[in-house]
Amino acid sequence: MDIGNTRIKTAQFEGDRLLHEVYFEEIQSFLEFTSTLVFDQAIISSVTLGEEELKKLLDFEFLFLSKSTLVPIINLYATPETLGVDRKAAAIGARCIIEKGPLLAIDLGSCITYEFLDDEDRYYGGAISPGLQMRFKAMHQQTARLPLVNLVLGEKPELVGNSTEKGMKSGVYYGILHEMQGFISEYQAKYPGLRVIICGGDSKIFESLTKDHIFVIPNLVLYGLNRILSYNVNLQ
Amino acid sequence: MDIGNTRIKTAQFEGDRLLHEVYFEEIQSFLEFTSTLVFDQAIISSVTLGEEELKKLLDFEFLFLSKSTLVPIINLYATPETLGVDRKAAAIGARCIIEKGPLLAIDLGSCITYEFLDDEDRYYGGAISPGLQMRFKAMHQQTARLPLVNLVLGEKPELVGNSTEKGMKSGVYYGILHEMQGFISEYQAKYPGLRVIICGGDSKIFESLTKDHIFVIPNLVLYGLNRILSYNVNLQ
Repeated sequence: MDIGNTRIKTAQFEGDRLLHEVYFEEIQSFLEFTSTLVFDQAIISSVTLGEEELKKLLDFEFLFLSKSTLVPIINLYATPETLGVDRKAAAIGARCIIEKGPLLAIDLGSCITYEFLDDEDRYYGGAISPGLQMRFKAMHQQTARLPLVNLVLGEKPELVGNSTEKGMKSGVYYGILHEMQGFISEYQAKYPGLRVIICGGDSKIFESLTKDHIFVIPNLVLYGLNRILSYNVNLQ
Repeated sequence: MDIGNTRIKTAQFEGDRLLHEVYFEEIQSFLEFTSTLVFDQAIISSVTLGEEELKKLLDFEFLFLSKSTLVPIINLYATPETLGVDRKAAAIGARCIIEKGPLLAIDLGSCITYEFLDDEDRYYGGAISPGLQMRFKAMHQQTARLPLVNLVLGEKPELVGNSTEKGMKSGVYYGILHEMQGFISEYQAKYPGLRVIICGGDSKIFESLTKDHIFVIPNLVLYGLNRILSYNVNLQ
């Protein structure tokens, strides 16, 4: 279970095989759902609710992914105490898909996070920038006159936006597209053979990026959480 | 005078020659300053205060840049009623510097705006995306746990940010850099010979972009306002 800033994402696995996944917009329907589930082990990553809060809300045992949870990568992040646990999970999820070599996982969620893992499974962090919705919301909230705009799945804005709404769509869509392409090029130049996975809620919007060495796997964090859970169960 | 979302920028011109410019963070010091000035003509562009509000505050005559002010370019924006007047001024300012051929003006203010003017002075709009401060502020305001970060002038973040703060700096800095480079490449491919001017408060941070056909001119909007004022005075 991955409790993010905007959504709660859950998946059930048998070994490495994903059986099904269910997403929730609000905590109440998530709680009702979990009370009907049957499973052996559970792991929760949360950037909003803490472990104690969750223990009060949930009537099952779970591994809470914290800064000190053992994970199958070497963490070289300089400030591990401020590392979002979901970011580590994305990197580990990417390693489930790309078994060898340097990799970059790009998670298009509330924020866009770039996670770099080298060929010896050393995790360095990467970058964090505002996500798609966040960019639209920021322009509306932080200026006097810009409207709140959104992109529909499958919509490809024109490069030259000849209206305020079209301009905002062009700026956010191509801004994120160019940002990702730029980061990918710089990482590929620095780490030859690097492969890229794009994941997260908005990854489908940028599926056009998919080509050699770039995969789009929306639920990558859930794969990462499953891998971390197996790793900890096997250590016991 | 250019009253923007975050600052008030003023400049005094004699013909096309800029004599001096003064910037203000708040309206009160701007009002005190204007009461000491001597000039023949004034123009005000404002995205916050309206013409009537300004007339009450200021004791001199001025041309208020509105949607209907005559300007020396052909406006092909589809929704002129929602076009920020400062955007038109940036495009006209760019035409003061680059006298011929297609041009792209990139204004790095509260928002980043891309303004395209073709070789026959037709203005089409372009794109709008969140500015540097806006990106940092949005990540802090719209998430539960990210701090408020900022970039110091001259600071060039590392590509691989191995801490939360460094990651946010990398994401915002390279995000904007790649966004601009991407837009410039796409426009140059579509409009051969296109030249680029980068302006606005944060343009100095990206001065490294300066190379053939890319100029950095922070106060471009003020040049544009001066050109619009001369154009209107000469029509009388």
